[in-house]
Amino acid sequence: MPNLKITLAYDGFDFHGWQVQPDLPTIQGTLSDALRRITGETILPQGSGRTDAGVHALAQVASCAIHSSIPPANLVIALNDILPPAIRVLHVEPVPPDFHARKSARAKTYQYRIYRGDICPPWLARHVYHHPYPLKEDAILAAAGQVVGEHDFTSFAAVDPEKGCEEEERSNVRAIFTSQWQRAGDELIYTVRGSGFLHHMVRNLVGTFLLVGKGTLKPDDISRILEVRNRSANPGATAPASGLYLVSVEY
Amino acid sequence: MPNLKITLAYDGFDFHGWQVQPDLPTIQGTLSDALRRITGETILPQGSGRTDAGVHALAQVASCAIHSSIPPANLVIALNDILPPAIRVLHVEPVPPDFHARKSARAKTYQYRIYRGDICPPWLARHVYHHPYPLKEDAILAAAGQVVGEHDFTSFAAVDPEKGCEEEERSNVRAIFTSQWQRAGDELIYTVRGSGFLHHMVRNLVGTFLLVGKGTLKPDDISRILEVRNRSANPGATAPASGLYLVSVEY
Repeated sequence: MPNLKITLAYDGFDFHGWQVQPDLPTIQGTLSDALRRITGETILPQGSGRTDAGVHALAQVASCAIHSSIPPANLVIALNDILPPAIRVLHVEPVPPDFHARKSARAKTYQYRIYRGDICPPWLARHVYHHPYPLKEDAILAAAGQVVGEHDFTSFAAVDPEKGCEEEERSNVRAIFTSQWQRAGDELIYTVRGSGFLHHMVRNLVGTFLLVGKGTLKPDDISRILEVRNRSANPGATAPASGLYLVSVEY
Repeated sequence: MPNLKITLAYDGFDFHGWQVQPDLPTIQGTLSDALRRITGETILPQGSGRTDAGVHALAQVASCAIHSSIPPANLVIALNDILPPAIRVLHVEPVPPDFHARKSARAKTYQYRIYRGDICPPWLARHVYHHPYPLKEDAILAAAGQVVGEHDFTSFAAVDPEKGCEEEERSNVRAIFTSQWQRAGDELIYTVRGSGFLHHMVRNLVGTFLLVGKGTLKPDDISRILEVRNRSANPGATAPASGLYLVSVEY
């Protein structure tokens, strides 16, 4: 029974997140339905992590074992024929039996897009966080590096750990390899690459960096908040889902 | 009673076109509702033309007379507070009493975006026409210029003239100033600037150019089809609304 690695992109706006839920459109559920229509098998592909409602993916990875011997290139075409245009399968490849999209992942990269112009173009409204208010962008850029390295990110994790992306891991220690803000035209974009991410971690990091931009926090406060290991000690809000993209998963 | 020129952008996907219709979301109806909430007045802004369901605008222009003396800059902010994110007012300015968004228009520019890649990114699905099939793009580029000049465009007009953008003008003669296809990354983009456009004219031009790309028509056939002045003599289909953008209106 071949094990498959499925790489897919999606616009998360119309979905209640990755994880299958009864009677609600989800990415996992929609992909599972499409696989069943093609193969006749009941298959629940396992994602590299659960993206929340409204979060997008440039290249989410899922894995599943199937009995059908349909060639991978044909499966890409068949899936894209059935799936809604908001979900596109980019690539399917056979992988060794022990490959698991979540457990085998070694690093993930996320981006967060903030639109800084006064008026957000209609075609970007679902795909960015529109924040036209004054920000000390230099302070945000300077603060970004403070989370690089291995840290306990409890202060940046959702308080509901059972709903986390990687809830089976008890520890809240994660390694961040890259953490960088940059201006690109009218957008301020955060790129973060790490060994893994707790539930809401990227959106909470963004919310906290925004307080640095507003002057409520100083760049140094990020390190202090990390050390406290308590979400209540972090005044940063969870930034909206619309701006968040899972960019890639490395194995 | 000041006469106002309102410039607005919209994502047409969720709307039943520009023109107000009972119990259906339209751009004109939504804008009219927002103006009534702000001013207390019943105002039906007149557009430069009626865009069809699913057609987008980078800068549609509407005009209306209002009694309220709200400063234009404040009206922009108030309208964008009320309107859905899919409609954004870019600019409001006072204009002379005889200004009329449609009657005063001297030229319009449209663009049509065709996505040529095998897999259409989810965030472009509503905003392009996905056409991954083989096309002789050189032939399309070469044919584009054939419609430049003053012509009777009956062969490229919808057969329902009463539903046209500019139905009060009996003549189907229009002047085309620019007609150009170009490759931009994974997209093939048509730009057309003219004195005015009949109903479905740009989408029918695109559908006919696509037949040139498929080899069904030769580039020279475009001139021949123009001369016949009969929609039935044109085998080109009406290209989907999702790829069409009203780019600008000149006065």
